[in-house]
Amino acid sequence: MYDVYAVREDFPVLKEVVYLDSTATTQTPVPAVEAMVEYFYRYAGNHGRGAHRLARETTNRYEDARETVARFLNSDPSKTVFTKNTTEGINLVANSYPWEAGDHIVTTMLEHHSNLLPWLRLQKKGVKVTIVSPDREGIIDPQIIENALTESTKLIAVTHVSNVFGSVQDISRILKLARKNGVKVLIDGAQSAGHMPVDLKALGCDFFATAGHKGLLGPQGTGVLYIKEPEMLDSASVGGGTVSEVSGGEYTLEPSPACFESGTPNIPGVIGLGRAVEYVEKIGVSEIEKHEAELSLQAAKRLSELDHVEVYGPENRAGIVPFNVTGLHAHDVALILDQTKKICVRSGHHCAIPITRFLEVESTVRASFALYNTQEEVDVLVNAVNALKALVS
Amino acid sequence: MYDVYAVREDFPVLKEVVYLDSTATTQTPVPAVEAMVEYFYRYAGNHGRGAHRLARETTNRYEDARETVARFLNSDPSKTVFTKNTTEGINLVANSYPWEAGDHIVTTMLEHHSNLLPWLRLQKKGVKVTIVSPDREGIIDPQIIENALTESTKLIAVTHVSNVFGSVQDISRILKLARKNGVKVLIDGAQSAGHMPVDLKALGCDFFATAGHKGLLGPQGTGVLYIKEPEMLDSASVGGGTVSEVSGGEYTLEPSPACFESGTPNIPGVIGLGRAVEYVEKIGVSEIEKHEAELSLQAAKRLSELDHVEVYGPENRAGIVPFNVTGLHAHDVALILDQTKKICVRSGHHCAIPITRFLEVESTVRASFALYNTQEEVDVLVNAVNALKALVS
Repeated sequence: MYDVYAVREDFPVLKEVVYLDSTATTQTPVPAVEAMVEYFYRYAGNHGRGAHRLARETTNRYEDARETVARFLNSDPSKTVFTKNTTEGINLVANSYPWEAGDHIVTTMLEHHSNLLPWLRLQKKGVKVTIVSPDREGIIDPQIIENALTESTKLIAVTHVSNVFGSVQDISRILKLARKNGVKVLIDGAQSAGHMPVDLKALGCDFFATAGHKGLLGPQGTGVLYIKEPEMLDSASVGGGTVSEVSGGEYTLEPSPACFESGTPNIPGVIGLGRAVEYVEKIGVSEIEKHEAELSLQAAKRLSELDHVEVYGPENRAGIVPFNVTGLHAHDVALILDQTKKICVRSGHHCAIPITRFLEVESTVRASFALYNTQEEVDVLVNAVNALKALVS
Repeated sequence: MYDVYAVREDFPVLKEVVYLDSTATTQTPVPAVEAMVEYFYRYAGNHGRGAHRLARETTNRYEDARETVARFLNSDPSKTVFTKNTTEGINLVANSYPWEAGDHIVTTMLEHHSNLLPWLRLQKKGVKVTIVSPDREGIIDPQIIENALTESTKLIAVTHVSNVFGSVQDISRILKLARKNGVKVLIDGAQSAGHMPVDLKALGCDFFATAGHKGLLGPQGTGVLYIKEPEMLDSASVGGGTVSEVSGGEYTLEPSPACFESGTPNIPGVIGLGRAVEYVEKIGVSEIEKHEAELSLQAAKRLSELDHVEVYGPENRAGIVPFNVTGLHAHDVALILDQTKKICVRSGHHCAIPITRFLEVESTVRASFALYNTQEEVDVLVNAVNALKALVS
């Protein structure tokens, strides 16, 4: 039996607010914060850069975190690169893949800017980009992606879970059609990893980028990029820690993951992330998935029943529920919910302007749920939104 | 009067070891760690991404840290970009400046790989790179830099303080000759910021990259890049938070610094960095500079007096003292110092292979000093190195 009240004890701020903005960032559990504090007070050193005891312990703990994350995603440590965030991971692929003029990329209108702009920018290099549309509920029909492929298509870049709708894409089918057509696939897993089982070896995708500070419950400033064939990419950033030899104006890069992690990494962040992933593992990601889906199903259903509210997205969804209140701006809704009931929801275009406009609105209110949210919090949200009726009638 | 013993109370790990590796990374003071813990437990949200109270407080604290860092370096918040580390800052400039084939860059053999490789890589785009040599003590004669300039020279990229020698470069003179010749200058300030006064407006350099986790005493995973004319650079990484508009396959970038900080930043790290910089400010960077110089002068002088030891670098130096013990490998020296006296020193090429080979060695032992080190620790080091005589005679 999933004990959400026990879980909540590990997130002190939840005693103060109704936190429904985990899609922007989750809260970080106490054991992960304590792991970072232990690092600072007991053994802080630099990674891979010294023979002394602090540098050794730091390196071991950092690499232990890599093994934990790789195990959790069923990846391989040598293919598991720590980044600053999902965005850095996607930009690393966009900036490092050996593109040629005329190459073609297929992406979708559903994407967060971070999985759209890096591809649009490649247009300057002569790369062509096709943006396919989802349906009104935020679902991409894989057939539409297949129809968009040309002989020049090198990559399909698609989100796993929409940060606007909470819609879960059929990435298995997308990966199958990509393999059939010899096209590589990048999955934006910012809203999936830690929220639902992700098995990278079973999926067989080429690139999977995610954040450390969302479903994985780690601190902000951490991310993970899985690269199936690291030798395919150049290093986007070179410097300390990335080379084995420098001589006569030339240099030799280290193998992955070192060649992709230039300079001193976010050591405390990665150690905190490793501990956070252990925390997720212990609770069980399938339990978390089920819990979040129940909350969002309830929230979406009950908000839909209110005459002055429009809810977007499909019935079966991850823990993300976007809506609007007739006659009120999304920002005003968010401010009122905060000021009257300390409910923290996001409002705006959620870094996804094209898909928000596709809905023929400029913004939405987004309530999102994580492992620590409760049915009582859904009640608080629905009641508070219901009370807005007085303002709009 | 500088009270090093009071300072040491804020760095718990110093009770356990003789930490002489602050050039790789300094320790982080308790108030900075506590500021990060407060963030996680009391108000963690995402930056600039929500109307609710946690997002607002997070954004305010993050931007307060930017103002603190800008004030400390006499920069401007809009020109002060938070990066992951020095390396990311330098790569951002290398990857974003509008280079043309035939452009010329002057750098030095003294550089850390992070201020060398990003320029060498530009050779693939037809950019020419000249690497000038320092003298045997790690000092670059500015005249040699001026002699290397051509009509095509766009940039001089030079370190402020050598991480190998501790030698302080005459950057004022280098900046003067660069201005005279219409050439831009990037300063690698990884080993200067927080160790000595740095006034970016007075210096007038075009780019200044530094780490958060060295002299500024912040956590690993933070860095600062000053860009005098941000509109000169493209954004190296695009995505969430970097754009104001996306439409029809085109996008409009936000002004600096937002356009350079894509995705969720290292919020706890930056907040910790801001608090750490306040800590440095309160002690006074000139006091710190004096304290570190005294320690390194003593250490270098006394190590030089040992027959079996060779010390490198100039007499007047920052807190960095490289040396070798005749007949012993640097790594063995570091291991023995650690195992016998819990002395943490670095050994190797210090991510600066060219300059290490210039010394006709493959590696050095490097003792480095920060605001929290003591004369007693210099004694422990000198006595322990002296005791190695038994192993080599």
